[in-house]
Amino acid sequence: MSKTPVYCDYNAGAPIRAEAAVAMSRALAAGGNASSVHSVGRRMRAMIEDARERIAGAVGASAENVVFTSGATEALHLVLDTFSAYWRKVNPPPPALDEFYEELEDDEDPPLRLRPSIVIAECEHDALFEDGKHRSMLRAPLLRSGLVDLEVLESVVRQAETPALVAVQLANNETGVIQPIAKIAAICRQYGALLLVDAAQAFGRIPVNIADLDATYLVVSSHKLGGPSGAGALVLAPGAPFVTTRFGGGQERGRRPGTENGAAVVGFASAVEWALKDSDAEAVRVTAMRDRFEAGLPKDAVIFGADAPRLPNTSNFALPGLTAETAVIAMDLEGVAISSGAACSSGKVRSSRVLAAMGVAPDVAKAALRVSFGHESKESDVDEALTALNKIAARRAQGAAA
Amino acid sequence: MSKTPVYCDYNAGAPIRAEAAVAMSRALAAGGNASSVHSVGRRMRAMIEDARERIAGAVGASAENVVFTSGATEALHLVLDTFSAYWRKVNPPPPALDEFYEELEDDEDPPLRLRPSIVIAECEHDALFEDGKHRSMLRAPLLRSGLVDLEVLESVVRQAETPALVAVQLANNETGVIQPIAKIAAICRQYGALLLVDAAQAFGRIPVNIADLDATYLVVSSHKLGGPSGAGALVLAPGAPFVTTRFGGGQERGRRPGTENGAAVVGFASAVEWALKDSDAEAVRVTAMRDRFEAGLPKDAVIFGADAPRLPNTSNFALPGLTAETAVIAMDLEGVAISSGAACSSGKVRSSRVLAAMGVAPDVAKAALRVSFGHESKESDVDEALTALNKIAARRAQGAAA
Repeated sequence: MSKTPVYCDYNAGAPIRAEAAVAMSRALAAGGNASSVHSVGRRMRAMIEDARERIAGAVGASAENVVFTSGATEALHLVLDTFSAYWRKVNPPPPALDEFYEELEDDEDPPLRLRPSIVIAECEHDALFEDGKHRSMLRAPLLRSGLVDLEVLESVVRQAETPALVAVQLANNETGVIQPIAKIAAICRQYGALLLVDAAQAFGRIPVNIADLDATYLVVSSHKLGGPSGAGALVLAPGAPFVTTRFGGGQERGRRPGTENGAAVVGFASAVEWALKDSDAEAVRVTAMRDRFEAGLPKDAVIFGADAPRLPNTSNFALPGLTAETAVIAMDLEGVAISSGAACSSGKVRSSRVLAAMGVAPDVAKAALRVSFGHESKESDVDEALTALNKIAARRAQGAAA
Repeated sequence: MSKTPVYCDYNAGAPIRAEAAVAMSRALAAGGNASSVHSVGRRMRAMIEDARERIAGAVGASAENVVFTSGATEALHLVLDTFSAYWRKVNPPPPALDEFYEELEDDEDPPLRLRPSIVIAECEHDALFEDGKHRSMLRAPLLRSGLVDLEVLESVVRQAETPALVAVQLANNETGVIQPIAKIAAICRQYGALLLVDAAQAFGRIPVNIADLDATYLVVSSHKLGGPSGAGALVLAPGAPFVTTRFGGGQERGRRPGTENGAAVVGFASAVEWALKDSDAEAVRVTAMRDRFEAGLPKDAVIFGADAPRLPNTSNFALPGLTAETAVIAMDLEGVAISSGAACSSGKVRSSRVLAAMGVAPDVAKAALRVSFGHESKESDVDEALTALNKIAARRAQGAAA
């Protein structure tokens, strides 16, 4: 394989930005443990705190409210853990267990105390969704557009045990659909619920500001915007509840133990800086590419999420009769890297639960493909992707005719 | 600060090996998400699996039993979590809660079911020790030598709820004392306990083989042996219980979710390879440096752990009357990076609980310093460290005389 593939899979992971790679090399060479008292340690500490300030500034937070993690998945789990601990703190078990269980017998309904207090949208990433199967969570459904059904969401939040945590992603990884976070935040305010916004896919592609979103917790990722894998952050709103659930060396203000991943954090901050440079112009450029790509698809193509606001870079579509698994592999042989709708599942192609939640029929969902552009994408990538796709689609038509 | 400091703090974190940095740069440039089906994803997958095989080979495990994490702290917590889940699985709560609580009333003693099942040594790293304060754990004390008191350990294991988990580090981060894991493993076998060996400090410095150690779980770290921070691994013995407690994208065979940190893992494997090259000769070289350093200390120096087997690279000592905080800062001003006995605590110098557990008097423990050498250390580092230390010690003597 000598030819560099045409890479159209930024939502799975963007290529590293050259500036981020250079910044990482420098931090790696500098070395040191940021907890050390000596100059080598202090130099690494300074680099990490500089990165923290820059990322905080990029999302409208203060530096002390940025908690670095090994990625968005860990950051999301950190919120679930800290929220559960906070919940137990404000809802302590009754002093006498005996009394509690006596009360239970008098009560026909399941006791209030056991009602779930976490509400997630049906479109949430596996990091929350799969974890949610093992915790007790309520789910808010999607409309056909891919947007969360706000009416139902409100009634679900109303039913949840208080304090509730509502988790909704800013933009979906498969469809790129952008959720109306302001409206969701208003619902949360009304019922005193905390709001977790997963901005892993949105950050670096559309504006992300924790105050504007009115979120309690914000999760961002490095490798989707051209930083290294292995870095992410949990960002807290001022006063956001945080109960420590992991103990160790006291790093990250006691919120996340373990020696800091200095190089990754420095690379993350550099990538954020470059991703936000001229981000408006870049969004226009990438949107135009995406729109030209969609305009060039075969006539029978179905585009998912097109009726809702979407990320500029994402196209999620199906060519009926062409299964995703076949298409991804055929495209790869043509030198174009795209993904099926549902990435993030250990190399297997499976039908998308997000599209199912949008009411897409299973046979159409099975054909879902995703093209996502980014900072190194160029116009010729659109042409090459379309050429390859039309070739494969024509073969499909021939196969059907034969 | 133009002069490169003389770095004598490898136990806090070793400088990155040049080969590891090059390997990381290559992996970063290659990019891709290992879960992607296309060639870019498969190339990253191949790099990660190659790294996994090399690290597995280095510790005598099979590749499928190596779980990559963001570091040793996360790997240790993963064992605690998975063990707790396993424990609940083999000790399910009684079917009827009522019956259970009725039984409780008949029993004067605390019920068996609530006795702790995790036993840790007093010398364990904060990642376990601090976490242990928030879980119910039993602790095994140390002898004055720094070795675990095996007689007491055995009686503690005998008292623990079954199945028990015993956690003992292979080598201590402060003193370098190497625990008799074979004997501890024999105790574990006798009582059917599982054994977790934290080899974060030992790996790359002395031989570490999961089968030879007879450990159930082995934890290793990257940044102590010249790999990048942000990488570590949990290694499982064949048949080691593992119950998943974190759910998400299914990475690491469903044992640890989140996009893999490809570059860090590749750098880790490269560092392991180079750390183990000529490791016997390197151990002899570093031991000679350490011994020459200790021989050159002021006559009233106290050396901790010297009566037990120790890591070749570590010297933990005190110059009575010279507090650690003063000495670390004074040494730093002389251009020599050393640490106080107790690193890993967000930049603060505090008295060592490990030395306290060895029966060291508080005023002596407050003076504990640590010098630790490694792959880039050279003979002149020993001379410079001794010159600086003797200068500071002389100043102390003058101060005392004045």
